[in-house]
Amino acid sequence: MLLVLGQCKPAARAADQSAPAASNVPGARTPSVSPDRSITFTLQAPDTRTVQVAGGDGLGAGPFPMTKNAEGMWRVTTPPAVPGFHYYWFVLDGVSVNDPSSETYFGYGKETSGVEVPEAGAEYYALATVPHGEVRAKWYLSKTTGEWRRAFVYTPPGYDSNPKTRYPVLILQHGAGEDETGWTRQGRAQFILDNLIAAGKAKPMIVVMDRGYATRAGIPAVTFGPGVPLSNALIAFGAFEDVIIHDLIPTIDASYRTIADREHRAMAGLSMGGMETLFVTLHHLDTFAFIASLSGPIAPDLNSNQPLGSEPVPFDTKTAYEGAFANPAEFNRRVKLLWLGVGTAEPELFRAGIGAAANALKAAGVQLVYFESDGTAHEWQTWRRGLYDLAPHLFR
Amino acid sequence: MLLVLGQCKPAARAADQSAPAASNVPGARTPSVSPDRSITFTLQAPDTRTVQVAGGDGLGAGPFPMTKNAEGMWRVTTPPAVPGFHYYWFVLDGVSVNDPSSETYFGYGKETSGVEVPEAGAEYYALATVPHGEVRAKWYLSKTTGEWRRAFVYTPPGYDSNPKTRYPVLILQHGAGEDETGWTRQGRAQFILDNLIAAGKAKPMIVVMDRGYATRAGIPAVTFGPGVPLSNALIAFGAFEDVIIHDLIPTIDASYRTIADREHRAMAGLSMGGMETLFVTLHHLDTFAFIASLSGPIAPDLNSNQPLGSEPVPFDTKTAYEGAFANPAEFNRRVKLLWLGVGTAEPELFRAGIGAAANALKAAGVQLVYFESDGTAHEWQTWRRGLYDLAPHLFR
Repeated sequence: MLLVLGQCKPAARAADQSAPAASNVPGARTPSVSPDRSITFTLQAPDTRTVQVAGGDGLGAGPFPMTKNAEGMWRVTTPPAVPGFHYYWFVLDGVSVNDPSSETYFGYGKETSGVEVPEAGAEYYALATVPHGEVRAKWYLSKTTGEWRRAFVYTPPGYDSNPKTRYPVLILQHGAGEDETGWTRQGRAQFILDNLIAAGKAKPMIVVMDRGYATRAGIPAVTFGPGVPLSNALIAFGAFEDVIIHDLIPTIDASYRTIADREHRAMAGLSMGGMETLFVTLHHLDTFAFIASLSGPIAPDLNSNQPLGSEPVPFDTKTAYEGAFANPAEFNRRVKLLWLGVGTAEPELFRAGIGAAANALKAAGVQLVYFESDGTAHEWQTWRRGLYDLAPHLFR
Repeated sequence: MLLVLGQCKPAARAADQSAPAASNVPGARTPSVSPDRSITFTLQAPDTRTVQVAGGDGLGAGPFPMTKNAEGMWRVTTPPAVPGFHYYWFVLDGVSVNDPSSETYFGYGKETSGVEVPEAGAEYYALATVPHGEVRAKWYLSKTTGEWRRAFVYTPPGYDSNPKTRYPVLILQHGAGEDETGWTRQGRAQFILDNLIAAGKAKPMIVVMDRGYATRAGIPAVTFGPGVPLSNALIAFGAFEDVIIHDLIPTIDASYRTIADREHRAMAGLSMGGMETLFVTLHHLDTFAFIASLSGPIAPDLNSNQPLGSEPVPFDTKTAYEGAFANPAEFNRRVKLLWLGVGTAEPELFRAGIGAAANALKAAGVQLVYFESDGTAHEWQTWRRGLYDLAPHLFR
């Protein structure tokens, strides 16, 4: 095998003005993205009978059949995609496989290809010439699960050179099927924070990205997803709640220079991570004063036998979330920020439910920030934009 | 899609005593490894005509044809494998693709499946109940390449809690086709160090794992590998040398509490990384006092037009490596450690060349440690064992 020894450079922009995606492995020419955001995919597979590209909503209404040339190279150029990061995969005679030209990103419970489509003018998640924090892999032993767990910890620029400075903490969770790598690999959270901090728009903070799955020691794992009763989530979320409160937070406070009080501790999460955030924080307002759910399905009653994905139940601010919002004045006094966000192209489960909850809460007098990401689906560009909007609100 | 919410646990050991590989994605039952180290692979692909498993040398003499059952599930159980980590892939009607059940590991210039085969009694690379260091992603701007680069930095247990302690530094490089993730993902270097430090066998040290590719700003990348003249390596290694000396080391010394002198600085690397180590360190004995090459092909004259992979040239200790060993007494006085290692099952390019160089150097009076890994090939188990042997020799 020949190896290209200078791997960091993408291949040059082709004559057609397309460029290899930033999400490719070094040296791979496809997927390539054109200025109009159409994407060309290729795969050498002379003996395969059908090849398609399929993937996340922002890719468009696939799957897209590819066509084979005389040399056995399959190719398709998709219609213009939505900006941002989209999971994708090839389907070879019915089998979903990754594109060897793509880096892999943990989604759908496995390593998955992804394609980065630039958004014109969006510099806020770029690796820019500003001071950079670090992302640290932190292993800790959980009493709740009886297992070692890995969290990623972002320490802000200057953390090591200012050894007397203490920092607030944001716990930031991924979605279902993803893992603790999601916010830095797909989400570019470290660069969003670096850029916001450099611009003076966000306070320097520690960001903790844990694995959003937990099973109590000795208990079988449960399944969760569309069609499964919400009450299943209680089992998993309850274990995760104990991990956060009894294992993770004490570990972080013992290991890093945190300001270890509720006014300097936030939790946020996307999708399932948003559900987990509301579940954990509303049980522990003594621990968290800042709460954010990015595209988190609203599930006012996790005791319900309703499946996730059924029509949103009416949001009764008196009873939802075990009455956490029943006294708006008291909630507003204790909670410094409640932030709810969603993409305008997300399915009804997300958009209608989150919008209805935000409206009901506002009408009842609960102070909150409601954020919409224009034109983006249940995908990472919604959550990058969400974090960019959210972080400046934190610890004020 | 249903999601299993407690993902850290491997599935239970099956009745046949096989167990899912530790390298699988959470919840995946195959590949599964039996106590005799035979491995069972499966793939659901009803419409594919042929499926094989292929991979690294330690898997055995593949590729292994799989057979399809009535439900469209392909399966094969391989003969007993060598212990350790082996890259592998499926071949579907001639197309090499990853196994969706496996985590991915950067090798062969792309993300690749891997299977972890336990070695009986080998605990030295386990995630054990000992104090753990951290692995930090450090971004830095290289003047040499004009680009941002990512290095991973292991800080030992106690680094943050002993803010006045300074540490020696080991620069530890991956092989060709791999990247800066290799030593922690495939190599488990952080756990090897944690365990050695906990046992008092290695000194606490900072380990820096950089990306072993570099191209000077404005210069096209070069290719390197079997059949390509060695002199091509000079171009790439020369750029990498400047990155190490002028960009990386100053960054590390400015960012971490290092002891910034040659007696507290080591460089080691595997395969291509071993070649790079000899190239860089022998040019800079004012910077490094500890030198180790793990399975690094011996290339005494990089100016040669010989291709890598031709028969090893005679190792002339007077002229090899630009005369670095011409004066053994002086070399021994300056260099605190020269360490050369290889696996006994490696191809001749590696084993014969490294063995001949070690013999010639010893005969000339150069002090060195020569290490052989019994029964392992040009694979990660050789390098895990190598690091476990090497680290206790450092900074003595």
